[in-house]
Amino acid sequence: MRVGVAGLGLIGGSLALALRARHEVRGFDVDRDTRAAAARGGVAVVERSEDLLPADAVIVATPVAAVLPTLAMLVARADGAVLVDVASVRGPVDGFAREHGDGARIVGMHPMAGRSARGFAAADPALFVKRSFLIVPTVRSDADAMRVAGTLARDAGGVVTVCSAAEHDRIVALTSALPLALAAALSVAASEATPDLAAFSGPGYRDATRLAETAVDLGEALLTANSANVVAAIARLRAVLDELERAVAERDSAAIRKILEAAGSARALLG
Amino acid sequence: MRVGVAGLGLIGGSLALALRARHEVRGFDVDRDTRAAAARGGVAVVERSEDLLPADAVIVATPVAAVLPTLAMLVARADGAVLVDVASVRGPVDGFAREHGDGARIVGMHPMAGRSARGFAAADPALFVKRSFLIVPTVRSDADAMRVAGTLARDAGGVVTVCSAAEHDRIVALTSALPLALAAALSVAASEATPDLAAFSGPGYRDATRLAETAVDLGEALLTANSANVVAAIARLRAVLDELERAVAERDSAAIRKILEAAGSARALLG
Repeated sequence: MRVGVAGLGLIGGSLALALRARHEVRGFDVDRDTRAAAARGGVAVVERSEDLLPADAVIVATPVAAVLPTLAMLVARADGAVLVDVASVRGPVDGFAREHGDGARIVGMHPMAGRSARGFAAADPALFVKRSFLIVPTVRSDADAMRVAGTLARDAGGVVTVCSAAEHDRIVALTSALPLALAAALSVAASEATPDLAAFSGPGYRDATRLAETAVDLGEALLTANSANVVAAIARLRAVLDELERAVAERDSAAIRKILEAAGSARALLG
Repeated sequence: MRVGVAGLGLIGGSLALALRARHEVRGFDVDRDTRAAAARGGVAVVERSEDLLPADAVIVATPVAAVLPTLAMLVARADGAVLVDVASVRGPVDGFAREHGDGARIVGMHPMAGRSARGFAAADPALFVKRSFLIVPTVRSDADAMRVAGTLARDAGGVVTVCSAAEHDRIVALTSALPLALAAALSVAASEATPDLAAFSGPGYRDATRLAETAVDLGEALLTANSANVVAAIARLRAVLDELERAVAERDSAAIRKILEAAGSARALLG
């Protein structure tokens, strides 16, 4: 396929590098230095976003704030191209698709992958190998558009799961936004307790707070664009934490063990 | 020095392997198979815990429940040996030392290191390289005993920080027990939301829940033996989480960004 990639940061850059073995890939980024870096990295780059078309598919992997403007630009001249966006909250894109016509063949393709490092310099064609991709239809996702998104996810090395926008946003609030919120709250609470966190912490604490390194723009978007689901996720977390706190306060070993065993079993299912 | 190691699991086994280059190390474990594995791994093992003495120092690295009984056995026949225990909550050992005589030259040496894998099979002489060791005196820790514990920590590859038992238990409640509690609560809450966590989660969720793999016995001990400090740590966490939740519910971007920026800055201090 002819595949355009708008946005050549960690995710878009990695997709461009992963897909160019099987597809005719062209990339664009608003940042001149990023375009130059991608070109040096072997990605065919164009100088204007419009030049990503004509194409069979255009992947939108811009920062969150630019997703809807980029989709609007593409819809106006898509001429049948499938528009695949990697936005990590589906509600806003879902609403955008409802407001646009049949030309807006938009499908969500959200990779469950990432790392703290950012930009094309961190891009890696192996980033998605065996990672889950959530393929999320909009009202404009016809069968062929869904097939295209699934093919791109698999060709990037990933494993495909299809779900609705509502299901996506409800569950990702628990598996993505809530871990970010907890890492941030833990990092703040622990740093208030000692000026020498490095001495008083080990690899467990490092793992538990790694998501506190998330870029602030992305973190803010994950939390605000999915606000109702994130509030519900925090409520679910608080219910378990309250019970655990009660058990700790009362040294109720049986109750503590029950929670730790349930947590360990659920974690073990991840393999 | 002549160094005994009581308990040859992940921590004790790793200490035995790390210290034998510079010291005359003998190890003991109540489990016959563990003794055999340690012997095959190059550790000089003895068949009875009493045979760890005479020694200049004995490291107690048993499961939590066996720490005080092991110290009691050693105190009765220490004959000047420094008793160095790696217990991750200091209050109970601190109390034990107060109740015993001058022969109980007990010093805490708590390594900020660990991994999910357990037992001597997971032991690694490099486990402690550049890791922080918290050296925690008891009322029986004379200057020479403190020097011995510091030497052992450094010879294992670690970096030494000295703190009181009270300071240790207050801070570790935030950097060790609280991350465990959050990982457990997150694992339970997320698993209630979907039967297919593997599809809906990525490396961020895996990091955030890794401590849910902690052995239940160890987790229970971390939470119950330090109960008051853990309850206080949960309260500190809840104060930050409540503010973050309010900000998310109201889509108060400025407040969200303020928390995420503080969290990122604190995390960055870990290097």
